[in-house]
Amino acid sequence: MNSSIILTAAQTADWLDKRDRFLLLTHRRPDGDTLGCAAALAQALQEYGKTAYVLYNPEVTPRYSRFVDSFWSPDGYAPEYVITVDTASTELFPEEYEQYKDAVSLCIDHHPSNTLYAEFTYLDASCASCGEIIYDILIRLKGNVSTKSAEGLYVALTSDTGCFVFANTTANTLRVASLLIDAGAPYREINKLLFRMKAHSRIKIEGMIYSGIEFHYDGAVAISTITRGMIEEAGATEDDLDDISSLPGSIDSVLAGITIRELTGERDCKVSVRSSPAVSSNEICARFGGGGHPMAGGFSLKASIPEIKKMLLEVLPEYLPKALKP
Amino acid sequence: MNSSIILTAAQTADWLDKRDRFLLLTHRRPDGDTLGCAAALAQALQEYGKTAYVLYNPEVTPRYSRFVDSFWSPDGYAPEYVITVDTASTELFPEEYEQYKDAVSLCIDHHPSNTLYAEFTYLDASCASCGEIIYDILIRLKGNVSTKSAEGLYVALTSDTGCFVFANTTANTLRVASLLIDAGAPYREINKLLFRMKAHSRIKIEGMIYSGIEFHYDGAVAISTITRGMIEEAGATEDDLDDISSLPGSIDSVLAGITIRELTGERDCKVSVRSSPAVSSNEICARFGGGGHPMAGGFSLKASIPEIKKMLLEVLPEYLPKALKP
Repeated sequence: MNSSIILTAAQTADWLDKRDRFLLLTHRRPDGDTLGCAAALAQALQEYGKTAYVLYNPEVTPRYSRFVDSFWSPDGYAPEYVITVDTASTELFPEEYEQYKDAVSLCIDHHPSNTLYAEFTYLDASCASCGEIIYDILIRLKGNVSTKSAEGLYVALTSDTGCFVFANTTANTLRVASLLIDAGAPYREINKLLFRMKAHSRIKIEGMIYSGIEFHYDGAVAISTITRGMIEEAGATEDDLDDISSLPGSIDSVLAGITIRELTGERDCKVSVRSSPAVSSNEICARFGGGGHPMAGGFSLKASIPEIKKMLLEVLPEYLPKALKP
Repeated sequence: MNSSIILTAAQTADWLDKRDRFLLLTHRRPDGDTLGCAAALAQALQEYGKTAYVLYNPEVTPRYSRFVDSFWSPDGYAPEYVITVDTASTELFPEEYEQYKDAVSLCIDHHPSNTLYAEFTYLDASCASCGEIIYDILIRLKGNVSTKSAEGLYVALTSDTGCFVFANTTANTLRVASLLIDAGAPYREINKLLFRMKAHSRIKIEGMIYSGIEFHYDGAVAISTITRGMIEEAGATEDDLDDISSLPGSIDSVLAGITIRELTGERDCKVSVRSSPAVSSNEICARFGGGGHPMAGGFSLKASIPEIKKMLLEVLPEYLPKALKP
């Protein structure tokens, strides 16, 4: 177990105020929350007269790069303080971040599973997105957020809540979003770009997934599979697969929606579980060496799709409500 | 042109405070805004010691009936004041409301096209939903909204904004939504029911539609077709087909998304056009005897899907931006 000095929001603002020359780190397979937070924090610190950049994340996708591209650290930048945002553990660092694993000064996060790997940690697990936390810190630090910071934070809030529709959304998420719009966040453009438009290739892969969904246990479990062949046929990119694991869980009868996706080969799969409160996604995933939240978890396995399906169907009844057990 | 006495929010609250025995009317093809507003207002007026009911709307669908079912007026109820919510004109009354066309005391609405048909009108066209207006009135009338009223208003706000993703959403929409959650609105259940859950039959028909979409003119035009056979095979209901015509228009390259759907037979089709601002949906539809708005139009034709497709593809180039004309 690591130990870390736990800060409050006010202490975190004070911590930033007293220091300079920051490098901000985002997590592996970066989403809108980690990238939006890093961009917003870098922007706000720069406005505040500090030197702050985001360490280039080689896994950034076109979907989000436009929001963070102007903040990548220049060659040879020598930071004094390394800060991570939305990153629960150093296991979630991209490979290229290796050298910073034992050198994180401050971690700002909202995951209850945070391993307290940083020297200082500000954690608020009540927040749907890390963006809400950064907003709170910036208001304490500067008294306001600029239009450009509001943009990054709006991307962060909406990415983690599916534009305020997921169950993690709270009154605070909507309150902060409302204030970000007041601050000038270009929310209509962001909503359209991130939530209303689909690539042709996304439409194709969704059509294939919908046609192939299998139902088990009276429709309580839906399993969708994504092979490398499907991805190739649809011409789907990583961006197109964003949030694809929420599809089977969105069918009305389904308590546990499972997505099995081939990664590098036929025997290298990533499994995502999305569930209603009656089923514990993280417990199911823990069984296979993974983890997550009660309603969203995942694990990776060196096995084929049919093998994983068989293993899952064997253990799933233990995690379903009693009435559904065979 | 009608004339109506225009009230402010405070005057509307005062108007309600001084009167009793209300009957609330909703519009034709009732959506979550009109029904949620009527339910919330009836609930609040009842809590306030008034007699208030909603006139049964025979077009209510299962999607929304649970929110309004307990407020339908009992047989023989003799109201003193008829109030419409979210209803821009008496043309939008269901047929069964005929007797009330010239008897509306108060209209509360957010449509700029309101025809001022009521004796008194409170109109705020800056609001994305009529729900935001009712919230404001209830706060002025009672100082708070109950959990049950908050439920109806949350349904109203989210229905008109696609759960805060449409371009009509404003900072005020999110601010009011945040306050409704604070008031106890069961927002997670509502989000799940209205925005996250898809019927198995909807998933099936979407899969078929996605697989069959045809692209023309460098991807600027997408045409999806829905036959009676597809609807039957998917077991899709009218609720399942809600907003289905927005699918082809949501693909990123597409300037005009067209949906051709068979109605009573092979040679009886309804055509919906959704477009980006560069293409005029209503002009395309006018060519075939239909109409609509610049970004959403429709027409009906006694012709088969292949015939309609051919006719459309012949005239469409005239309506596309120059660069795309063949």
